[in-house]
Amino acid sequence: MKKILVIGAGKSATHLISYLLEQSETLNWQITVGDINLELAQKKLNNHPNGKAVFFDIHDENLRQQYIQEADIVASLLPYKFHSIVAKDCLKFGKNLVTASYVDATCKALAPEFEKANLLFMAEIGLDPGIDHLATMKMLDDLKAKGAKINALYSYTGALIHPENDNNPWHYKFTWAPMNVITAGQGTSQYMYNNKPKYIPYNRLFKSSSEREIGDLGIFEVYPNRDSIQYRKKYNVDGVGTFLRGTLRRKGYCPAWDTFVQLGWTNNKQIIEVNGQTYTDLLEAYLPIYIQKGRTIEESLAAFLNIELDSNIMDQLRWLELFDHKPIGLEKGTIAEILCHLLQEKWKLEEDDKDMIVMLHELEYELNGEERKQVATMVCMGESKDNTAISKTVGLPLGIMLKLIVTGQIKLTGVKIPTMPEAYNPILKELAQYGIVFEEKDLILSS
Amino acid sequence: MKKILVIGAGKSATHLISYLLEQSETLNWQITVGDINLELAQKKLNNHPNGKAVFFDIHDENLRQQYIQEADIVASLLPYKFHSIVAKDCLKFGKNLVTASYVDATCKALAPEFEKANLLFMAEIGLDPGIDHLATMKMLDDLKAKGAKINALYSYTGALIHPENDNNPWHYKFTWAPMNVITAGQGTSQYMYNNKPKYIPYNRLFKSSSEREIGDLGIFEVYPNRDSIQYRKKYNVDGVGTFLRGTLRRKGYCPAWDTFVQLGWTNNKQIIEVNGQTYTDLLEAYLPIYIQKGRTIEESLAAFLNIELDSNIMDQLRWLELFDHKPIGLEKGTIAEILCHLLQEKWKLEEDDKDMIVMLHELEYELNGEERKQVATMVCMGESKDNTAISKTVGLPLGIMLKLIVTGQIKLTGVKIPTMPEAYNPILKELAQYGIVFEEKDLILSS
Repeated sequence: MKKILVIGAGKSATHLISYLLEQSETLNWQITVGDINLELAQKKLNNHPNGKAVFFDIHDENLRQQYIQEADIVASLLPYKFHSIVAKDCLKFGKNLVTASYVDATCKALAPEFEKANLLFMAEIGLDPGIDHLATMKMLDDLKAKGAKINALYSYTGALIHPENDNNPWHYKFTWAPMNVITAGQGTSQYMYNNKPKYIPYNRLFKSSSEREIGDLGIFEVYPNRDSIQYRKKYNVDGVGTFLRGTLRRKGYCPAWDTFVQLGWTNNKQIIEVNGQTYTDLLEAYLPIYIQKGRTIEESLAAFLNIELDSNIMDQLRWLELFDHKPIGLEKGTIAEILCHLLQEKWKLEEDDKDMIVMLHELEYELNGEERKQVATMVCMGESKDNTAISKTVGLPLGIMLKLIVTGQIKLTGVKIPTMPEAYNPILKELAQYGIVFEEKDLILSS
Repeated sequence: MKKILVIGAGKSATHLISYLLEQSETLNWQITVGDINLELAQKKLNNHPNGKAVFFDIHDENLRQQYIQEADIVASLLPYKFHSIVAKDCLKFGKNLVTASYVDATCKALAPEFEKANLLFMAEIGLDPGIDHLATMKMLDDLKAKGAKINALYSYTGALIHPENDNNPWHYKFTWAPMNVITAGQGTSQYMYNNKPKYIPYNRLFKSSSEREIGDLGIFEVYPNRDSIQYRKKYNVDGVGTFLRGTLRRKGYCPAWDTFVQLGWTNNKQIIEVNGQTYTDLLEAYLPIYIQKGRTIEESLAAFLNIELDSNIMDQLRWLELFDHKPIGLEKGTIAEILCHLLQEKWKLEEDDKDMIVMLHELEYELNGEERKQVATMVCMGESKDNTAISKTVGLPLGIMLKLIVTGQIKLTGVKIPTMPEAYNPILKELAQYGIVFEEKDLILSS
């Protein structure tokens, strides 16, 4: 009997746990789910005979090491900063590890040790990063096998609200960790364009969006996400001239969100005192003095953004009650926390709301003298507020990867991301059984 | 015989050490100077019989605690992040501590322990923070004693190049830690204006400068520095409507520096690969694609900044050889490090160059029905490349404070900054003997 330890029973764990329990019935597994909230772990296991809920505190070394030592393999769904703690214990006790998070410098540094210990730390096997790696690598390898020359790869993912519940002027609700949405894109994003690196600092990121029409879902906006350049090498397409990973939002989101970037409202470092101020007071406090002379706050913000009072962006901001002297209801916090507090009310998932995942891959290539473009789209709709598309698309690839490792179908060592055929072939195949499928089109650009 | 331990023998230590050696001759002190570079410590002590140079590594706990235990008082000139390590040892061995750095959250948290141990951690007693606290507090207390109502306080400091050596179009050279200049102002600056808080995020900071004429030195630019709001309470003028601490630069610096902020060239977190690119290549990589269509890099940058090709800012940028495909000479680094590498060549202090410190305080107040303004200016000229104004203005207040504590004239406990009369009166008086004096003017604004 194989023992699988899942650390973290939060939102992203739902489908992973039910997939593992389902598999446990034929594969003779025991699924231990550890969380600081024992009840949550119990709830997710739903009294399944192969499930065991335990209290787990990452900072309790004895408890942590006990559970890791008892397991055959570990899946960490903790916030990414804790993965290195778990990884070091996995090294100590000789366990394989899987996560859905980006490989950070700390984890990358452990690669030689995992290699030496003949162990695998498989990261970036969730949605994005995860399914994007699987699907683009399969497209790339298939095209290369046909003799194609790859010119460009664009890979976009968005976690959005279900079209049926898309009923606010931002066309956005929080279907995932709110603070990650507030602080998304901070730093400098980088990608390759026409054989040259491009760098987009945060203050220009949401001004840099472009549009994409996706099937009958309508128009979306895309903007670059983090460091795309490193993935050229990881995808084994070092020479491809244009390579960009990005984020999808509904049309109108990016230019409106840029308001908060320009105001400075996404700073999550400095605590400010609220002292009874309203959101409108804070808006005034963040607007340049010279622009406010003889103008209302609403007029000042429009002037600051250089837009008309009756523009879409101003409608989006008005819908947030920014000009209505709405009380804040916090004593202090970073301005990002204060903004998040407002948006958690405005962008809240209602009881009947569902989410939607959209992934779009565009590959430009040359084959037999023709310039062509392959476009692959994946749309996954959530079924309810709890049975979400994001939990499904994060949890299932993680669960399937775990199965491939436990059953010996993947025998790798070191710190890896899922770019190899022995990962993408079986995982994409099994994902399709769960309705996660890509619709592909192949277009002739010129000949 | 009192034993004084100075940790750090770098640029800022020069005048502190010579002041302490000078005092040691009448006060019977032994001055131990510890640095990771033993030779540097020896050089600064210049074979003085009361001086002792030792090798000091902050990370060597045994050595560190040995020297702190042997001392009667400790002055730390280390980078601020190390102060809390030294402070904890001072608590352990019952020693007072002085530094010229800002009190950060870690040090602030130690206040109850210093209080309880009957010890003093006196911070912010250098130039800025330091002399600014001393001088403005004296002005404020004197005016309040006369019955004045304080309406506004502006406090500005600049570390600049001596007018004789001011021979480049930026009117700036590195007279202090270069990387601190590159990353200055990151985060959100905050101050009080007309009884309301104002917040200036980094992307607008260098657009927010205003001008000041100072005596016959000419026109300067000032911009807000960090968190001024907290100092209202610390200065005991909680009710003052306008309160701003800021930085002084020569006219033309701020709008030109804003180029690098807008480009994203001050990011010191993400390493980029240079791969043989020139500064001009990197400039192209950081400019938006849409702006480069049909333009040279020089034209693109002017269009990006929305300025004329023959403007002052473009002259300043041309003077840095940004458009000349100058090789970088680094393999990789953050873009801030790459920019710093260029500026360390361009803004280098020449062998005969001297520096200049300028401090400007403006106090607006009402007295006997009149609205008045007191303006105090301090200008300190460096004497040579090594005998700098900045070392003098940082080191002397620190040294004098140290003397006041060792000789029992200041008997405070806890974590403090020098806002009290028993600090500012004797220190300002002694600074005057070294030529550090404020020139005051009192103007009637209206009556």
